[in-house]
Amino acid sequence: MSKGTRTRQHIIARAATVFNTQGFAGTSMADLTRQTGIEKGGIYNHFPSKEALALAAFDYAVTLISQRMQEVMAQEERAIDRLYAITNVFRSVIDAPLVPGGCPLMNTAIEADDTSSALRERAQETMSSWLRLIGGTVKQGIANGELRPDTDPRMVATIMVAALEGAIMLSKLYDDSLYIHRAVEHLIEYLQSLAS
Amino acid sequence: MSKGTRTRQHIIARAATVFNTQGFAGTSMADLTRQTGIEKGGIYNHFPSKEALALAAFDYAVTLISQRMQEVMAQEERAIDRLYAITNVFRSVIDAPLVPGGCPLMNTAIEADDTSSALRERAQETMSSWLRLIGGTVKQGIANGELRPDTDPRMVATIMVAALEGAIMLSKLYDDSLYIHRAVEHLIEYLQSLAS
Repeated sequence: MSKGTRTRQHIIARAATVFNTQGFAGTSMADLTRQTGIEKGGIYNHFPSKEALALAAFDYAVTLISQRMQEVMAQEERAIDRLYAITNVFRSVIDAPLVPGGCPLMNTAIEADDTSSALRERAQETMSSWLRLIGGTVKQGIANGELRPDTDPRMVATIMVAALEGAIMLSKLYDDSLYIHRAVEHLIEYLQSLAS
Repeated sequence: MSKGTRTRQHIIARAATVFNTQGFAGTSMADLTRQTGIEKGGIYNHFPSKEALALAAFDYAVTLISQRMQEVMAQEERAIDRLYAITNVFRSVIDAPLVPGGCPLMNTAIEADDTSSALRERAQETMSSWLRLIGGTVKQGIANGELRPDTDPRMVATIMVAALEGAIMLSKLYDDSLYIHRAVEHLIEYLQSLAS
């Protein structure tokens, strides 16, 4: 890896934490230079704007979570166990965060939802990929007879993401993991009720 | 109502929409003067700081929702119908918003959760009052025999708020009410499963 690439990666990784804790609007170039230890000119050398850096930092943060999903799912044979594994990845956003500050996808969605920014589009794309991952796993579970044939994959995907993200919001607000643990417990019961 | 009080109320109501769509950090005094039609000096005449105005705007926005909850609950006799009514109030955040921009409580929670600001404290207090309202209704439902005695009021409150707020996030992200409708459908089934 060249020095330039290493510097770029260093900026992205540090910026991901700053944006995820302070938000896009709440992050100034002064915050970014302080947290990366790199001069403003050095940052602009790699990223033409704060938004360009925010997009790279968003991709970095959500890719870490998506990779963790792929890894834990790959260790499970049954579709229902893969769905349980996904709930654990959301729990890890509180219990063992890859990037501090909560779920980068929810944080970005909430901040960008009333804009027509590139960040909102990127959040939509990432959310769609997560919903498809869950929905596709439900479809596999139906196909191999683990889940009832009348199970609605899109319903399950919506309920899992909504309950887990909402519970992450509560756990972050109170700084208490209780809420995400309750959501995981509820979803395990819900998934069991769909077993054929 | 004195002219000063009317002006103050006008500033708060307009500011509530600005903060709820743009966020606290994303709202400048210039945005507030433009959206209220009141000069900076006029705003500072009523509020010592942007944060003081944001707190008043937050209280205004969440009180509108809390009042709607009280109103719809007062129309129902049974505890389970009151819980259904609460899910409908969350649905109205998408279908018939009192303040544009999604749920002011979730928006504030997400933005303020990594700070120690007065906004975070206020969000915690409001969230606790909503969780108590739901939990208390569940307790009534257990006491009058509508809900199974082993129902956990705090679990029900967490799952309702988490699923509804998470679904509001999805509906706002995609500008599609489908997600909040799915969450309401899921919660109605969940509450039915707790009926004794």
